[in-house]
Amino acid sequence: MATVLSTIREPRDLDGLSPAQLETLAAEIREHLIVGVSAAGGHLGSNLGVVELTIALHRVFESPRDRIVFDVGHQAYVHKLLTGRQDFSMLRRKGGLSGYPARAESPHDIVENQHASTALCWADGLANARDLTGVDGHVVAVIGDGGLTGGMVWEALNNIAAAKDRPLVIVVNDNGRSYQPTIGGLADYLARVRTAPDYEKVLQWGRSVLENTPLFGRQVMAVAHGAKKGLKDVLVPQGMFEDLGLKYIGPIDGHNEADLEAAFERAKGFPGPVIVHCITEKGHGYPEAEQSDERYHQVKATNAAPPGAGNWTNAFAGEMVALGAERPDIVAITAAMRRSTGLEPFAELFPDRFFDVGIAEQHAVASAAGLATAGLHPVVAVYGTFLTRAFDQLLMDVALHRCGVTFALDRSGVTGEDGASHNGVWDLAVLQVVPGLRMAAPRDAAQLRAQLREAVAVSDAPTVVRYPKGDAGAPIPAVDRVGDMDLLRRPDPAEQAEVLIVSVGGMAEVCCAVADQLTAGGHPTTVVDPRWVKPLDPALPGLAAGHRLVVTVEDGVRAGGVGAAVGQALADANVWRPVRSFGTPVAFLDHASRGQVLQHCGLTARDITDQVEATLTTLDRTDATVAMSG
Amino acid sequence: MATVLSTIREPRDLDGLSPAQLETLAAEIREHLIVGVSAAGGHLGSNLGVVELTIALHRVFESPRDRIVFDVGHQAYVHKLLTGRQDFSMLRRKGGLSGYPARAESPHDIVENQHASTALCWADGLANARDLTGVDGHVVAVIGDGGLTGGMVWEALNNIAAAKDRPLVIVVNDNGRSYQPTIGGLADYLARVRTAPDYEKVLQWGRSVLENTPLFGRQVMAVAHGAKKGLKDVLVPQGMFEDLGLKYIGPIDGHNEADLEAAFERAKGFPGPVIVHCITEKGHGYPEAEQSDERYHQVKATNAAPPGAGNWTNAFAGEMVALGAERPDIVAITAAMRRSTGLEPFAELFPDRFFDVGIAEQHAVASAAGLATAGLHPVVAVYGTFLTRAFDQLLMDVALHRCGVTFALDRSGVTGEDGASHNGVWDLAVLQVVPGLRMAAPRDAAQLRAQLREAVAVSDAPTVVRYPKGDAGAPIPAVDRVGDMDLLRRPDPAEQAEVLIVSVGGMAEVCCAVADQLTAGGHPTTVVDPRWVKPLDPALPGLAAGHRLVVTVEDGVRAGGVGAAVGQALADANVWRPVRSFGTPVAFLDHASRGQVLQHCGLTARDITDQVEATLTTLDRTDATVAMSG
Repeated sequence: MATVLSTIREPRDLDGLSPAQLETLAAEIREHLIVGVSAAGGHLGSNLGVVELTIALHRVFESPRDRIVFDVGHQAYVHKLLTGRQDFSMLRRKGGLSGYPARAESPHDIVENQHASTALCWADGLANARDLTGVDGHVVAVIGDGGLTGGMVWEALNNIAAAKDRPLVIVVNDNGRSYQPTIGGLADYLARVRTAPDYEKVLQWGRSVLENTPLFGRQVMAVAHGAKKGLKDVLVPQGMFEDLGLKYIGPIDGHNEADLEAAFERAKGFPGPVIVHCITEKGHGYPEAEQSDERYHQVKATNAAPPGAGNWTNAFAGEMVALGAERPDIVAITAAMRRSTGLEPFAELFPDRFFDVGIAEQHAVASAAGLATAGLHPVVAVYGTFLTRAFDQLLMDVALHRCGVTFALDRSGVTGEDGASHNGVWDLAVLQVVPGLRMAAPRDAAQLRAQLREAVAVSDAPTVVRYPKGDAGAPIPAVDRVGDMDLLRRPDPAEQAEVLIVSVGGMAEVCCAVADQLTAGGHPTTVVDPRWVKPLDPALPGLAAGHRLVVTVEDGVRAGGVGAAVGQALADANVWRPVRSFGTPVAFLDHASRGQVLQHCGLTARDITDQVEATLTTLDRTDATVAMSG
Repeated sequence: MATVLSTIREPRDLDGLSPAQLETLAAEIREHLIVGVSAAGGHLGSNLGVVELTIALHRVFESPRDRIVFDVGHQAYVHKLLTGRQDFSMLRRKGGLSGYPARAESPHDIVENQHASTALCWADGLANARDLTGVDGHVVAVIGDGGLTGGMVWEALNNIAAAKDRPLVIVVNDNGRSYQPTIGGLADYLARVRTAPDYEKVLQWGRSVLENTPLFGRQVMAVAHGAKKGLKDVLVPQGMFEDLGLKYIGPIDGHNEADLEAAFERAKGFPGPVIVHCITEKGHGYPEAEQSDERYHQVKATNAAPPGAGNWTNAFAGEMVALGAERPDIVAITAAMRRSTGLEPFAELFPDRFFDVGIAEQHAVASAAGLATAGLHPVVAVYGTFLTRAFDQLLMDVALHRCGVTFALDRSGVTGEDGASHNGVWDLAVLQVVPGLRMAAPRDAAQLRAQLREAVAVSDAPTVVRYPKGDAGAPIPAVDRVGDMDLLRRPDPAEQAEVLIVSVGGMAEVCCAVADQLTAGGHPTTVVDPRWVKPLDPALPGLAAGHRLVVTVEDGVRAGGVGAAVGQALADANVWRPVRSFGTPVAFLDHASRGQVLQHCGLTARDITDQVEATLTTLDRTDATVAMSG
């Protein structure tokens, strides 16, 4: 028998469904999510929580004419199912559906960005454009309570509220948690709203009492009026949003489809900005998820390999615990990612020295400057892709004030399945400009532990330690040392070394393979791991001078990256050697496995070897004689 | 006769002053500010507004044991006068006092960053560190209502409020304006608080009525209690801050020193986070300032030259007006800098298409993505130094979604007097990584107008047009064209060209001078202005191949900048030429005149010529033969 879900090709197919059919549909969607996401890996809990909410949204609003913007987008799977995308078999895999909204997939998708707290900014822009161009349509932003803690929300609310007569609907999907329970003053406020007494009854009763107590009633009304508030606002704790000039509707039971529809209809008819506050339960309808700590925020594919002892995150987690025990001045900061950044063991052992600031990277970094100025050493652990959110704070708060702050950038470089905005490929290039900053790219778990120790030993400058996603693989021993750099391959002294490969961090294994192939092919090749990619070791130009061609390999964007820095360092030392730099292109990288993305970027041993051989041929053919430095 | 001011060497000298002496002191400080700042140039209005506030702060709190953090810091002149820095004769000049707090000047200065909205983040970090290390002392953040619109404030408040039992004082200096009147829902809210009826009286009266109306009174109290609010909060519109869990004191007359002291004493004694809301008047006590539109926010030195017709900002302003008339789809966005970015004429002619989002760069950029997605072409005008605040939004909202948004970066490159955090030296390097982004560095006002037109003609990618502070100088004509690049100097065809200078934007005049010196010295030199520095013109490697040495000159940070990009472009084309890149060092630049800073960076014609000659000598001496490409 055909399911209800299979009859939904686009949102308008929802219109004719009966309440019973809607209930069946919700159950079918949950089943589909549990099966599909469990198999492919992806965000499960958040999507289970928004089944009714998404159905109601698509029944009340007319996407794509009405523009529905999903913040972060990891709760958009239900939206995908209702907009003609039900084949989850290749979810997050090359060629399959993206794990996030994707404009290329559907006209119903608007924002692909997987960084949080942007939806209200987009909505403000879309609504302004709608009114200026005179087209019809509502603008709806859907944002979680976790996303609300980001500063962009504040900036957007301030502008949205100022446009008093411009319709714009903000749906708050309040499940009380981002990855884990949402933290902070705003979260406390939302919790109070959720648990307030049955204010509608109090309100009605109060109104009648006021009417019968003329003097006081008038006075209260006058004050309330002076403050442009209604009586309701005097009695219920929804004030904050209305203080800012936003109409508030709620709290609404986020698993009651009929209630949600009614609230959305009311919001749709309101001639100004309005917030609909929906209370949902992450993992709703899947007892296993409801009871787990992170509520199945993201699940791994069922056939995924378990993380090994060499896992980068685990190595960081373990060393942080050791450092925390040794050094009472070390504190740790996360932006709502206590577990996934590996800070949980530290947080459990040293709760007073652990700060989860919410989804608020700017605050994480700027408050670290305050902590460091007062004598502590903060370690800010964040995914590589999210540090760009706090670039100004790293530059102008931490670096300008010469603060000893360590940044642990997990998931740096190519990450893969999560798609374009999760790749942490920007850091090696962008951070080159930060004065005083030191940057380590450890090549294996042992190096990560050692370099983290070197980082926290610095008290007057920021240090970045960046490492990839996943398994760190086998240790790669140094065969020698030049300056403070490790040599990983060294040609036979009897042979004239021809190529120097500068290997950055996790690319060491690939670089060693390239060297072995080149050496075997008659081009004796050295591999050096500079360990610190900023500043570069002063011994590097001298080492390069003994080679004919310098090759750099990094899993970050090539423009302005370590390769560019090597080129400038050699020029500064008057070592004029050709530098061939390998890295990711200046492009956004589609979702696929990490290996597939690296292959796409030409960052495999075979590709690099071929390119280097071609370069050597070119140098031969053009009789390029590159002189030794003076 | 000695003034009172001259007796104040450090804050404790304030302790013994009588009310009359305090009044005299305030008048003397105003006189000192008006004379000193008018002579040197600098921020006047904001400092005139905080005279009493700063005196009261230093009487109640014990700096530096108590930590007073000034947001932005342009209202810290009074603080300087009270902490032993009264010689304003060299204000903002090389070797003189900084126009902002400076750690090197005084232990009373904590935050030097001149980017707004950071103070609460710092305060949160400082307060956490204080409690963890067990030292004594209060933490006080002073922030303007303009600064409150920045997202970092929201992130910080959320964390500050969560630490319910941790004392922290936030002083809001509410003058209703940043550069111009503050805009948005928050500003409206603050205005309502300022103009609320005399609520203390209502409150007292209401309380007695409630006590005599037991049933209703109890009910109101119960609701209020359930919401963790006091009765006062039910009656007065201070709710927003208290909703977040912050004690609110105010509004306080910010020019009544005694009232301020009383409020600060109350705040000092409060065992949790507290906001003191002070109403001040920008330019207070200087009628000329009080009546001006921007309230003498910043004044030019009295002997400063008037801006010429070739002023960069004016050229932008004029072209925006022309474009606005031609293209109804062009809209303009500023982050609280309507006038200084040159958008005022556009705003006056096309008010519906002009958006001042407040000090909220993230929202400016992300909302532009929304506007562009809906078919408009936004021009975001911002100082170069502030774009780093919205780097993530430029990358993940605008570029990822291929939005046609133009960024006009005024005050790019070296700015000078305002000091380290005002220099816009980061863009040329950092923006290299943004996929699809095009970047123009016009060399004169005519080029700025032309390239702005080219920018707004692009609808599927972001474009940056960046130009320096001040006067654009004389037009620099092209003598020829190669690809889409302008040749500014071309050696006699009879001579073998030796040096190619790639000139970036406003450095054209210096580059031409270098070329003339080099050519005269026997090194025939070509100067090319690539006009577009990203992507580089495909004809550049071919041009470079005809020279022996390539020199790049940019007024941005050298690491990863245009010079690095040129090096990579030549390598990609197998054109192996030495590239010598000139730019600013990876360092923060102290305040001084623009010319002095450029000199410090070695970016004068004489310095560059000397360096290039030395490089040529090195290449000769080492017999460096750099082969032509194949």
